[in-house]
Amino acid sequence: MSSGNLADRPTFGVGQVGYAFMGRTHSQAWRTVGAFFDLPVTPVMAALVGRSPDAVRAAAAQLGWAAAETDWRQLLKRDDIQVVDICTPGDSHAEIAIAALGAGKHVIVEKPLANTVAEAEAMAEAAAAAAERGVRSMVAFNYRRVPALALARQLVADGRLGTIRHVRAQYLQDWITDPEFPLVWRLQRDKAGSGALGDIGAHIVDITQFVCGERITGVSAVTETFVKERPLADASAGLSAQAGGAVATGPVTVDDAAIFTARFAGGALGSFEATRFATGRKNALRVEINGSRGSLAFDFESMNELSFYDAEEDGGTAGFRRILVTEPEHPYLGAWWPAGHLLGYEHTFTHEVRDFLLAVAEGTDPTPSFADGLQVQRVLAAVEDSAAAGSAWTPIP
Amino acid sequence: MSSGNLADRPTFGVGQVGYAFMGRTHSQAWRTVGAFFDLPVTPVMAALVGRSPDAVRAAAAQLGWAAAETDWRQLLKRDDIQVVDICTPGDSHAEIAIAALGAGKHVIVEKPLANTVAEAEAMAEAAAAAAERGVRSMVAFNYRRVPALALARQLVADGRLGTIRHVRAQYLQDWITDPEFPLVWRLQRDKAGSGALGDIGAHIVDITQFVCGERITGVSAVTETFVKERPLADASAGLSAQAGGAVATGPVTVDDAAIFTARFAGGALGSFEATRFATGRKNALRVEINGSRGSLAFDFESMNELSFYDAEEDGGTAGFRRILVTEPEHPYLGAWWPAGHLLGYEHTFTHEVRDFLLAVAEGTDPTPSFADGLQVQRVLAAVEDSAAAGSAWTPIP
Amino acid sequence: MSSGNLADRPTFGVGQVGYAFMGRTHSQAWRTVGAFFDLPVTPVMAALVGRSPDAVRAAAAQLGWAAAETDWRQLLKRDDIQVVDICTPGDSHAEIAIAALGAGKHVIVEKPLANTVAEAEAMAEAAAAAAERGVRSMVAFNYRRVPALALARQLVADGRLGTIRHVRAQYLQDWITDPEFPLVWRLQRDKAGSGALGDIGAHIVDITQFVCGERITGVSAVTETFVKERPLADASAGLSAQAGGAVATGPVTVDDAAIFTARFAGGALGSFEATRFATGRKNALRVEINGSRGSLAFDFESMNELSFYDAEEDGGTAGFRRILVTEPEHPYLGAWWPAGHLLGYEHTFTHEVRDFLLAVAEGTDPTPSFADGLQVQRVLAAVEDSAAAGSAWTPIP
Amino acid sequence: MSSGNLADRPTFGVGQVGYAFMGRTHSQAWRTVGAFFDLPVTPVMAALVGRSPDAVRAAAAQLGWAAAETDWRQLLKRDDIQVVDICTPGDSHAEIAIAALGAGKHVIVEKPLANTVAEAEAMAEAAAAAAERGVRSMVAFNYRRVPALALARQLVADGRLGTIRHVRAQYLQDWITDPEFPLVWRLQRDKAGSGALGDIGAHIVDITQFVCGERITGVSAVTETFVKERPLADASAGLSAQAGGAVATGPVTVDDAAIFTARFAGGALGSFEATRFATGRKNALRVEINGSRGSLAFDFESMNELSFYDAEEDGGTAGFRRILVTEPEHPYLGAWWPAGHLLGYEHTFTHEVRDFLLAVAEGTDPTPSFADGLQVQRVLAAVEDSAAAGSAWTPIP
Repeated sequence: MSSGNLADRPTFGVGQVGYAFMGRTHSQAWRTVGAFFDLPVTPVMAALVGRSPDAVRAAAAQLGWAAAETDWRQLLKRDDIQVVDICTPGDSHAEIAIAALGAGKHVIVEKPLANTVAEAEAMAEAAAAAAERGVRSMVAFNYRRVPALALARQLVADGRLGTIRHVRAQYLQDWITDPEFPLVWRLQRDKAGSGALGDIGAHIVDITQFVCGERITGVSAVTETFVKERPLADASAGLSAQAGGAVATGPVTVDDAAIFTARFAGGALGSFEATRFATGRKNALRVEINGSRGSLAFDFESMNELSFYDAEEDGGTAGFRRILVTEPEHPYLGAWWPAGHLLGYEHTFTHEVRDFLLAVAEGTDPTPSFADGLQVQRVLAAVEDSAAAGSAWTPIP
Repeated sequence: MSSGNLADRPTFGVGQVGYAFMGRTHSQAWRTVGAFFDLPVTPVMAALVGRSPDAVRAAAAQLGWAAAETDWRQLLKRDDIQVVDICTPGDSHAEIAIAALGAGKHVIVEKPLANTVAEAEAMAEAAAAAAERGVRSMVAFNYRRVPALALARQLVADGRLGTIRHVRAQYLQDWITDPEFPLVWRLQRDKAGSGALGDIGAHIVDITQFVCGERITGVSAVTETFVKERPLADASAGLSAQAGGAVATGPVTVDDAAIFTARFAGGALGSFEATRFATGRKNALRVEINGSRGSLAFDFESMNELSFYDAEEDGGTAGFRRILVTEPEHPYLGAWWPAGHLLGYEHTFTHEVRDFLLAVAEGTDPTPSFADGLQVQRVLAAVEDSAAAGSAWTPIP
Repeated sequence: MSSGNLADRPTFGVGQVGYAFMGRTHSQAWRTVGAFFDLPVTPVMAALVGRSPDAVRAAAAQLGWAAAETDWRQLLKRDDIQVVDICTPGDSHAEIAIAALGAGKHVIVEKPLANTVAEAEAMAEAAAAAAERGVRSMVAFNYRRVPALALARQLVADGRLGTIRHVRAQYLQDWITDPEFPLVWRLQRDKAGSGALGDIGAHIVDITQFVCGERITGVSAVTETFVKERPLADASAGLSAQAGGAVATGPVTVDDAAIFTARFAGGALGSFEATRFATGRKNALRVEINGSRGSLAFDFESMNELSFYDAEEDGGTAGFRRILVTEPEHPYLGAWWPAGHLLGYEHTFTHEVRDFLLAVAEGTDPTPSFADGLQVQRVLAAVEDSAAAGSAWTPIP
Repeated sequence: MSSGNLADRPTFGVGQVGYAFMGRTHSQAWRTVGAFFDLPVTPVMAALVGRSPDAVRAAAAQLGWAAAETDWRQLLKRDDIQVVDICTPGDSHAEIAIAALGAGKHVIVEKPLANTVAEAEAMAEAAAAAAERGVRSMVAFNYRRVPALALARQLVADGRLGTIRHVRAQYLQDWITDPEFPLVWRLQRDKAGSGALGDIGAHIVDITQFVCGERITGVSAVTETFVKERPLADASAGLSAQAGGAVATGPVTVDDAAIFTARFAGGALGSFEATRFATGRKNALRVEINGSRGSLAFDFESMNELSFYDAEEDGGTAGFRRILVTEPEHPYLGAWWPAGHLLGYEHTFTHEVRDFLLAVAEGTDPTPSFADGLQVQRVLAAVEDSAAAGSAWTPIP
């Protein structure tokens, strides 16, 4: 695959903060990227950070990190670390990211960028300042790196859809339909910022804007919390958790679901829905776009496929094509297997760190930027504002 | 199929007004229903009404009507006619229906019930008065008679979905995406009342309320007319039409698309979209319902199928089932073919007139009633009001 | 639709023999065809034939036939009857068809043409002789008139598939998986000729040859009867029947399933399967064809769709297109509804009698001819011969 | 995930021979398995073997192997290597595997086990002898470790399908439909043993027997080479290759496609097809099984899904369920992501080495064994024999 000599390439030390669900996906990405992609730099999994010494040491051993740290500030002091990858809940993003950028570390931060617009603004400002010093940053909207969605972006950019008229996007999950499911951190406003809206709604706001190449200009929204009180959680891991034996409960302080209409800058109408109460839908990030020349449809539950309708085709044979996005000419696919041998969820992160490393090595700004993350945050804030104001139309600043 | 003697059954004269798209579907229904369903009465296709003498005579001959009339008032005078079936554009519904009910004729009227809430109110009032005299009426929301949607209603009524959390419904077509498509009557407010909203949005308002057994209590909406001026049409037939050679154009006075959020009486959130600009979607009436115990999904483009997720199933084998709704135990199917031999669009009308005839013969009120049609009209009006008021939340009276 | 005057057209009396499952489909076709298609002649449903006077009289009334007869020979004597439509089990096809052709009646006969090659040869001979006198005949392989399969034929004929390499066809049903299902006539060799092979295997032999425009040249086969003894049936109707209370059973004398490999004249390999034991598959007539330039896939359980892969497309956007075969330019569709408004099973018969009437009126031979039916019979016989000879390769004469 | 201490576990040195397509999948498996599965031993990627010193050194660096060797015999001498993983073409399997087992190394060998029955017999014999000494072996039919197919096996083993009546399996690819595609090693009998038959047909023979828990007892077959002469290849990698500029061509000495009927020990009929000429199908390993109580369907192009029809369900709601096989209770899934976050092709290998390591650590024989591989080889040989003998029925010894 590689024509050059791996040994001659500069190494790039990575320090990662957090090793829960997102921490595991990022670790797998760092561990895998060099084996498949021809990179100008060699990432080194230098240190993993967690608060519990024993637990972080065990995680580092299992996930392949050379060392474990219990304070993220240690990463900033280490010369062998060039990248800080932040996989913690949203309430700590701003502090860590701004400090890391200040220390001259390139930064990747999980989405949503922050829990508030104010934090996101501070982060975007810090990122802009850092970029002038050649220090790069990126917010990890990993679905941009689903090959089928990257292909979708290409088709829109190539004009294959013409003028976009309709965008409909849903992100449907069902992991908290059981009222006995406990009050994990993702259901608490102080930790998570918002509920379905910020966790998964953020993804469909970003991905539709990315694919369309257009921004949302205003929204009208309704949000709902169907189950208002839940058992307290003893512990939580990833998206699953077990209620403790205790009968103690606490209030759910985030939305269970958010639905909103929107307008895009180019005149398209948008219809959005993010929910954790769509029984039977496990991770159905679905996007449909209708344009004057064609249409696209995607569902992450069939993530290797993109449906494309080309209105320029002869009427008698026109139809939605199921493109199996596994051909060498598809985005990212040249590095992987022969056609028809599918990729999985984790590869979106492998592609993400690949693009990040390429950009940093080339001295360019990776995307999506913190500014992009801030704009998504503003859309989410407008959704909440509109919902609080009787669905009144709320422009995005 | 029939155990009794056909000859002994009372006949039921039908007079139908209109023979365009809807007139043809209703004619096929009247012609077919008796051959498949065991009915207490025998419908007789007595007279077809149209304004042009030659054209209506030719249509009557082709579609199987015994006679042709050029004035619908003639139907009201004929003793051999017990049913008036109104298949005209919405602007004439109120006048014909109220007169026919007044003359003691049972009435079926195509949807939407009327072009305005005021007209619909007058019609509902007339229907209520007529019902006291044993004169029946029905608004023809034919999709209630898609077997898969009738099955959906049964599953919800049987509690298989539990508490409903989410309703998402779209009615997507693409027949006017070409800006050169002419200004047919369906694009003119005075004839059609509204655009996508009243034509196809009305269907998804009705069908979701029917399947859920719950009414919409409020909406927040956005509407749009993408192509604001179109060539004048020489003529129109069904959903297709040809622009004349003339360069003259006229304004489109209805919406091309309407999107809205909603709340249902039982607490569910609704997300609705009706458009004629969904390139590649031909007649995609799609409904998804998520409840605490299960979910349903339907797309009219695969009208013989219903997807059902039963959350009571063991996790290891749970999944959306593709129910091929062609079994003898499915609604209406006992009258048709062996399992797996599909039905088509037209059969929704056959089922509709079957249910109408049964109700009339049994002396009960068929559904959906004019009152149901009026309620749909109120939802449509609220959608327009909300769209005109910056998407402000608008309760349904 | 029609520009001419219906009244000026010659009428065409039809006499139909049989009114069970196939008799009902043909009746619906005769009743419907004139309302949708512009025909040079007007079919008249003159007489229905059955053995039981009361039953046939009731059926005639319900299905719309003007008269009932108890002996098919009566049809041959009536001057007002120009067409005899034979919907009886295969053991009576030869006698009725040959007599009817001899009497100068045009003949449609349900498939399979006959129960034996010898009978089929006699019928083909009679048909050839009759054709010289202008008397027409047709075997009713109705699936040729599924619009999606007619479109498939067009695509192959237009060269869109290139050289055909693979044909795989299955006709999967499950209506006799229950060993308590009774011994209906379709399970008895003397009535039905063969089992799944002749009933549904005949369809996939015909349809693949039709779509490919190539004949099968040889086969190697395995057949099986999974349930060898069944309760005697009191009565049977269509594909469903009820076992009598009696414990008496009888031997199943036909195959439950037949699988075979084949070669086509142009070099393609064929893989065929016909079974009544495919649990969950109701009427899954499935055809896939792979050629050097493209591929097709079809499943009757989604009969309004054709999947088409065009290998000439750019690799990045190639994919199987789901063509919704409901556009005006699709075969037969111009006569029906707007795009996206699906057709059902019964209209394969409507299209069949339409094509028959057109051919007869134009003085040409309709297809498939009795000679085509004979060739299918020879393939079926070769399948049985091969199965009896240890799957030895068996050429078709 | 792991409760024990990673550092306390014994390490297990792995030496891998080959680093082309299969070598890359196995490398990724060895690199990944420990990060997700709690293993009793820790695999160490000790050495990679290839013939070209420079190339193997570069590959080892990229794929994460500690050392590179140019002779597989070196692996047998190294005490730090306990496992030899053979990823070479089939012609070298027997020699390497027998020597490695003789040297006391546990062995994994890619499928097909060998190019001839004789070689496979020798290997199975060596494996049986080694097992008595506690030396383990496994043939790498990776599709057994697709979670959906492992679930399929469970459902059959649990009796959810009842008596199996039909098995239909296809492995469809299209990578050599272009006659200009060069003569790579997979198209040469001396290297590959056979063509589509051994390469992909072997997989569907193994997987259907595995899922059904029954062996194939006899076959009747047809094979074909559509393109008999191809340009000589300069080089080949994976499934893609480039023709050299030379006009020189050579004969294709293997089958392009093989189709065969089969009988299973329990009475089921089998219909099989393996081809590299199914235009548009990229890696469509498809299996359908119909039993008296239910049915299954699978397509690797949607590898995270299993379709299951349960005939015990109420008729009105029965249907093929699309099980998204990503729940924690599904085979292998507990180690991965939350539900709905899909796995890819490569993880079939991760699961494979996980099962291998577990078996070895527990002192049991992993499956599929060399004896299983030999039996598959006998089926393939019977297919070739039958094809050479006019499709005569050929029992499996």
